[in-house]
Amino acid sequence: MLYNEMTKAELLELRNGLMSLYEEKKGLGLNLSMARGKPSKQQLELSMPMLNVLNDSTAFVGEDKFDVRNYGVLSGIKEAKKFFADILEVKPENIVLYGSASLTLMYDTISRAYIKGILGSTPWSKLDKVKFLCPVPGYDRHFTICEFFGIEMINIPMDENGPDMDMVEKLVSEDASIKGIWCVPKYSNPSGYVYSDEVVKRFASLKPAAEDFRIFWDNAYIIHHLYPEKPAKLLNIVEECEKAGNPDMVYEFTSTSKVTFAGAGISAMAASERNIKSAVEMMNAQIISHDKLNQLRHVLFLPTMDAVEKHMAKHADIMRPKFEAVLDILDKELGSLGIAEWTKPMGGYFIGFDAMEGCAKKIVSMCADAGVVMTDAGATYPYGNDPKDSNIRIAPSFPEIDELMEAAEIFVICVKIASIDKILDTK
Amino acid sequence: MLYNEMTKAELLELRNGLMSLYEEKKGLGLNLSMARGKPSKQQLELSMPMLNVLNDSTAFVGEDKFDVRNYGVLSGIKEAKKFFADILEVKPENIVLYGSASLTLMYDTISRAYIKGILGSTPWSKLDKVKFLCPVPGYDRHFTICEFFGIEMINIPMDENGPDMDMVEKLVSEDASIKGIWCVPKYSNPSGYVYSDEVVKRFASLKPAAEDFRIFWDNAYIIHHLYPEKPAKLLNIVEECEKAGNPDMVYEFTSTSKVTFAGAGISAMAASERNIKSAVEMMNAQIISHDKLNQLRHVLFLPTMDAVEKHMAKHADIMRPKFEAVLDILDKELGSLGIAEWTKPMGGYFIGFDAMEGCAKKIVSMCADAGVVMTDAGATYPYGNDPKDSNIRIAPSFPEIDELMEAAEIFVICVKIASIDKILDTK
Repeated sequence: MLYNEMTKAELLELRNGLMSLYEEKKGLGLNLSMARGKPSKQQLELSMPMLNVLNDSTAFVGEDKFDVRNYGVLSGIKEAKKFFADILEVKPENIVLYGSASLTLMYDTISRAYIKGILGSTPWSKLDKVKFLCPVPGYDRHFTICEFFGIEMINIPMDENGPDMDMVEKLVSEDASIKGIWCVPKYSNPSGYVYSDEVVKRFASLKPAAEDFRIFWDNAYIIHHLYPEKPAKLLNIVEECEKAGNPDMVYEFTSTSKVTFAGAGISAMAASERNIKSAVEMMNAQIISHDKLNQLRHVLFLPTMDAVEKHMAKHADIMRPKFEAVLDILDKELGSLGIAEWTKPMGGYFIGFDAMEGCAKKIVSMCADAGVVMTDAGATYPYGNDPKDSNIRIAPSFPEIDELMEAAEIFVICVKIASIDKILDTK
Repeated sequence: MLYNEMTKAELLELRNGLMSLYEEKKGLGLNLSMARGKPSKQQLELSMPMLNVLNDSTAFVGEDKFDVRNYGVLSGIKEAKKFFADILEVKPENIVLYGSASLTLMYDTISRAYIKGILGSTPWSKLDKVKFLCPVPGYDRHFTICEFFGIEMINIPMDENGPDMDMVEKLVSEDASIKGIWCVPKYSNPSGYVYSDEVVKRFASLKPAAEDFRIFWDNAYIIHHLYPEKPAKLLNIVEECEKAGNPDMVYEFTSTSKVTFAGAGISAMAASERNIKSAVEMMNAQIISHDKLNQLRHVLFLPTMDAVEKHMAKHADIMRPKFEAVLDILDKELGSLGIAEWTKPMGGYFIGFDAMEGCAKKIVSMCADAGVVMTDAGATYPYGNDPKDSNIRIAPSFPEIDELMEAAEIFVICVKIASIDKILDTK
């Protein structure tokens, strides 16, 4: 029965029961988390053999003719460029490698634009105003980078096909201070959406007022399917930008953080050869090379796309039951109440959850009091400000499944109580 | 016999003989290098066991209570902080860890000052002029960072005790646009000098006009003795700055690039707790953590200072004969000619060589023509501009000893010819 069709008395009675249940859970002194998109211990174990692929019989001198244990090879070893080129379906010449986090690569890319400008344009530090478009809900660490550099963020609504492209096209073509847009195009963080072909093509065909406008295409979950037999298809943005005559307009990012070790992966940017050349030239002031032994470790552990896919299928086997367990609880407990909506992702690390307006902060706070840590309400919006106070990011990956189910049960209790309070307020 | 006491005829005859020898060497089609301070293959082999210290029985959850294979622990694992704290003789609270290169840590430290300022002061990007003092000859990659950020560099002469402190004190106290100074205080690059106690104390007692003035203390060669039984002593700058009431005035850097693998080490900054706290806060926008598995690898491979010292003694055993071979050739061939001076370092990676004024470029170019690559003449000065065109950095570490001796023989021939030409010009 829909909550908002219930009488005040019915709701109050229901609330009493839920509060007893909540207090009972609170008394358990739990310490659970659905807060961060961290791989679980079981997933980390999958990559343990990688730690021993290097040994005395390893060929440390590879295609670049340099000993990877030594200095040199600034842009990364050829073998690892091919690894990412295969994943991103681009040419190795379109790849530059980075360290253990694509986040650093994104930050440094913006940092270089800030300090030196992009391909000859004015450094962003010399401009009065720099703005980025931020499809929402989105990834908090993208927003943190913008805040760090004083970049003004503009919310762009999203649906299951991607950002509102009418709005993107209009803003980008009219305002030369808009220099970028953050996208997580596949299994988006936090909604799990996959951008439609039309959306990707419209991105590739943008006519920005700013010559140094760039699409920051964070393809973090490109091979992170929950159902490997039904992988989502995303058009290749680098290729589409080329076709549309905008080859320099996109920077694509990815990493192995959720393929091998979250704390010790390798990362890459794909872009036009002009963009890559410029990035490598500027990197020369910052580093001699990123950790090439770790690059070699990765390519020896996952030497072919077939090996990568088999490896990712093992991740999926661990992740899928967790997603399904949470979704089952949401369906069963909230499915018929008319108080929330949530996504059913086919990949990635998150379930996007929308509570009734004005309820997200309260739900997250009640969860915390009962020992269940959720991502902060608002974190999925720039400046931590969800105008509707509605969106909550659910991250099912890290906990063991029994803990996860316990956490989800507490979460739905909190959702119900907060929703009843909201409805009662308006009755 | 001193060249400048020889007659023109004697010099011309000598030159003829040397030119024949030079042409003969040139005909060999050699491909040798004394250009970069790279560890040799034999040195890299010393750390091979480190590649297999991590395995199924490793305790991946350490003092921080986090699985080092996963996200988290932004400033680095406690065990690795202790590792560097022991080397730098500071407290672990004074340490932040970084990735495979201290160069990146130095660049990023300047980058953060440029973007956000230091402890509340104006970001350097908002200032009309930022200047750094550069003791010369110095390390080219320091100068490259300054050039990248548009920082004006001022040469400071050095002798075997360190930079000219009268000049440093005067400039720093008078000019608030001077924001930093680059130092390689121990076994300096390229001269191999060790700063005297008095110099270190005068550094610690500087009274800069700029509140955001910082000493960039690149202690790259802190444990890189050629004669481990006679290690040079350098006063602890962090401690001295504390004593002098200037606790925030120094950033000290070091790494394991020349301890384990040049392409896959770990690095650290030591500074006051205030400086470290500020750096870590800003790092939060850039990274989740640097590669913690590599941090763990290092502490398991080199668990005590005793292990570190034994390991470094093996490096010394490989490096020492190379330095001695080059120095022997310099002594024997150039010692009595009055045409050059050079340093006799007790550690580090370089020999500093001063040719007659106006000869360095010619010597390096002649070497290159005969298949011997030297560091570019001028590279040891800001903007690649050695005002006397005299200084050449000799890097004996990388070649095998027979190749090194061959290269040194060619080098001295070139020095002799260039010097004769210079003397003949003035006769």
